[in-house]
Amino acid sequence: MSKHRNRHAGLAAKVMSAEEAAALIDNGATIGMSGFTGSGYPKAVPMALAERIEAEHSAGRPFKVKVWTGASTGPELDGALARADGIEFRLPYNSDPIARERINRGQMQYFDLHLSQVAPMAWMGFLGKLDTAVIEISGITEDGKLIPSSSVGNNKTWLEQADKIILELNHWQSEALDGMHDIYYGTALPPNRVPIPLVKPDDRIGQTRFDVDPDKVVAVVETDTPDRNAPFSPPDAVAEAIAGHILDFLGNEVKQGRLPRGLLPLQSGVGNVPNAVMAGLIDAPFDQMTAFTEVIQDGMLDMIEAGKLHMASATAFSLSPEKAAYFNDNAQFFRDKLILRPQEISNHPELVRRLGCIAMNGLIEADIYGNVNSTHVMGSRIQNGIGGSGDFARNGYVSIFMTPSTAKGGKISAIVPMAAHVDHIAQDVQVIVTEQGLADLRGLSPKQRARAIIETCAHPAYRDGLRAYFERAQRDSYGNHAPNVLSEALSWHRRFVETGTMKE
Amino acid sequence: MSKHRNRHAGLAAKVMSAEEAAALIDNGATIGMSGFTGSGYPKAVPMALAERIEAEHSAGRPFKVKVWTGASTGPELDGALARADGIEFRLPYNSDPIARERINRGQMQYFDLHLSQVAPMAWMGFLGKLDTAVIEISGITEDGKLIPSSSVGNNKTWLEQADKIILELNHWQSEALDGMHDIYYGTALPPNRVPIPLVKPDDRIGQTRFDVDPDKVVAVVETDTPDRNAPFSPPDAVAEAIAGHILDFLGNEVKQGRLPRGLLPLQSGVGNVPNAVMAGLIDAPFDQMTAFTEVIQDGMLDMIEAGKLHMASATAFSLSPEKAAYFNDNAQFFRDKLILRPQEISNHPELVRRLGCIAMNGLIEADIYGNVNSTHVMGSRIQNGIGGSGDFARNGYVSIFMTPSTAKGGKISAIVPMAAHVDHIAQDVQVIVTEQGLADLRGLSPKQRARAIIETCAHPAYRDGLRAYFERAQRDSYGNHAPNVLSEALSWHRRFVETGTMKE
Repeated sequence: MSKHRNRHAGLAAKVMSAEEAAALIDNGATIGMSGFTGSGYPKAVPMALAERIEAEHSAGRPFKVKVWTGASTGPELDGALARADGIEFRLPYNSDPIARERINRGQMQYFDLHLSQVAPMAWMGFLGKLDTAVIEISGITEDGKLIPSSSVGNNKTWLEQADKIILELNHWQSEALDGMHDIYYGTALPPNRVPIPLVKPDDRIGQTRFDVDPDKVVAVVETDTPDRNAPFSPPDAVAEAIAGHILDFLGNEVKQGRLPRGLLPLQSGVGNVPNAVMAGLIDAPFDQMTAFTEVIQDGMLDMIEAGKLHMASATAFSLSPEKAAYFNDNAQFFRDKLILRPQEISNHPELVRRLGCIAMNGLIEADIYGNVNSTHVMGSRIQNGIGGSGDFARNGYVSIFMTPSTAKGGKISAIVPMAAHVDHIAQDVQVIVTEQGLADLRGLSPKQRARAIIETCAHPAYRDGLRAYFERAQRDSYGNHAPNVLSEALSWHRRFVETGTMKE
Repeated sequence: MSKHRNRHAGLAAKVMSAEEAAALIDNGATIGMSGFTGSGYPKAVPMALAERIEAEHSAGRPFKVKVWTGASTGPELDGALARADGIEFRLPYNSDPIARERINRGQMQYFDLHLSQVAPMAWMGFLGKLDTAVIEISGITEDGKLIPSSSVGNNKTWLEQADKIILELNHWQSEALDGMHDIYYGTALPPNRVPIPLVKPDDRIGQTRFDVDPDKVVAVVETDTPDRNAPFSPPDAVAEAIAGHILDFLGNEVKQGRLPRGLLPLQSGVGNVPNAVMAGLIDAPFDQMTAFTEVIQDGMLDMIEAGKLHMASATAFSLSPEKAAYFNDNAQFFRDKLILRPQEISNHPELVRRLGCIAMNGLIEADIYGNVNSTHVMGSRIQNGIGGSGDFARNGYVSIFMTPSTAKGGKISAIVPMAAHVDHIAQDVQVIVTEQGLADLRGLSPKQRARAIIETCAHPAYRDGLRAYFERAQRDSYGNHAPNVLSEALSWHRRFVETGTMKE
């Protein structure tokens, strides 16, 4: 099975087991792994490395590594290494529950950064030296080029920067992936940067395969393992209500002449609210839509099949297991409608601004002035990370944040007096939408925003409390531009931590 | 005197007094004014409008206007109109003390936004309709082109979008300004945006004068009035210590190969700390430096005269009165070393990222995790606004925030447990520097950042308090990623409001 996908003689000679490859990684190493939103991450070597770490620990020897990725990976990588207590430092995004727990216990250092900035910062030398790259690919050509897998992420950069490279050649990935990628090799460090020559989401500006120095490749490990992702979460009534408000908003923007009939390139995350939006867009009167986004999720494939989405550009798939299998069976149909790019390109501020993306992101909480917390539950406990939300929210044409108005069965209000952590400042938040309604905050002063958010977005169970806070704040605040009562601003969070609910 | 500077017959016929011009502005109008950091703002018409508003108010009639500008203006504009209670709504930046007081009493709505985004948002139609433009210029050509004044700001957009235009032709401005500007006419709304073809700070990509439809011009008012700006504030020991740390940092970056010997384009604000940095750069071993920034301040002219700064690109001057007079006397020397551009270009994320600006901005407070508050004193009282700091901090090569470690004679600590408002999230803050020292936060997790900031930047009088908070937070926090004690996080601010000092 090796010959068919590994067509380079020199690299064919480097095939070995995951255990042999993992033995080439040193204690203390910094490893650049592939993987973005649960796709295209290495699956065998991290598991073997975790076993090796556990063995070392059992023998009383220290063994930890620093792990850089594209974004989130899967249980075989973050889960296995975190369970083995093998990760000393992690960047730039994590959604693995075991790793999350370790971070929040203070047992693992986590550096959470804008996904567009990871590769440039690595190139600038700000992150330190990269020892080893472990990259999943879907094939190797005769001339030693690497056919990327189901995510691109930072792989180009890891392959260039690492001293040694371990490749995981995954036979489970569709061979139709070949040709779907667009790997741009025109980036540089200042003062040598030039405009990125992309003006439409479907422009191709690079090559379809990675370059690699075969001499740096120390191992090729063959696998046949599916990407592991969350199952499809069907839209519920709350998600459908949120989606309905967004579709009304977009429809009105078209009517007012502020958006073209095909909208502008969509950016959207993963989950049941985005799924509901995608489902709604299939029936909406918008044609020839495009997506310029991080991830291709189930709903986008549906939109393509329905003839509504002309094409989607992203850096990774994030498909449910059922949809991933469906994609593999129908890859020939989809392959010329999808482009996967490095995340420094999919999320590049220059391109997000130029194309005018419609940014749709989730949140943990928003305060009455429109500042958004996407990451820190109760101001201290990291959920996942900022990911690409900042890349898109600041630079998009219109920045929409969407959430159910409550969480934990109503015990947490998504609208609070003061956000306990801020990821997106009010300037970068133009629209907040919950199942209760949509607040259009464009051009509003802080107090105007507060009235719109409280009356439109907050859950009725919390609305009186927010009104009362805002009234007291206007009376007692130090300044009356964005009035706050310092002794009360975080009291809802305190109450939740102490009593298990934000309700009085 | 009119003929020499106003060489267009049609516009020469529209010369009138400021009072006559102000009478053309209606109650409730939205006015786009020129002006950026105290330069190039209209001086006669706003004063006449303020008198008219006062007269209307005395007669019991309502009269207020909405004012859009480039950034801050002068006492003849924001001061006069705010004193007359004539401003209903203001964007995007203000530093006038009378207007500030009205905003903070809740008597004036203020919408504070990224300076790069004002013109695009106006074009998108997000801000509403612009009725009148009042623009200071330094001349009118035979063919009806407008020679810009000492700032460009959003003038191109206001001239295009307003229904009617009032020009203030200021004879005080140097005639040598003609040719110094670069007005880019290639912007568009998506999906028609293209790369901005600027790859070096001294590239010229536009024309030197504004286009205008002469039929929209309803008045030309002649003035001979200086720009009014703050006097030069000489560096004190604290400013010099901060500058020294920054120069050491930059020197080490060059030594480590992370910055070229001529550095990268500098961005810097105004004040005695930036002045100290500029003064230090004159003696530093960096050659052929450039600036790509918002404002040209005194120190940059000194650097140019010293042969250290090759050129500076900005959108406005912000010179002390002495230096402004000096510039006017020596404009021929400086004119080919300076370029003034629209603020959507001087601050454009695409260009700031491409050029790799070294961003140096001030702050009000930073918290131990590196989140920066640039705008809201005690979380509610607006100081000026975010201005362009977000444009540069997020997109620059390295983002430096600089501040004395205390304010108000030691009663306020610039380093606090939790910022009471956030403008710059920790991801956008790579370096924090006070006179105590410089914390290099690149690649650090939140707890690593906290140790660096407390031990390096905080004033010794507050260091123990911060250490104790951080210790308690690690013990009692809900999550231990970025530990916080919710009941104490804002207690330093509360103490200041209640007792006049953050000290226990």
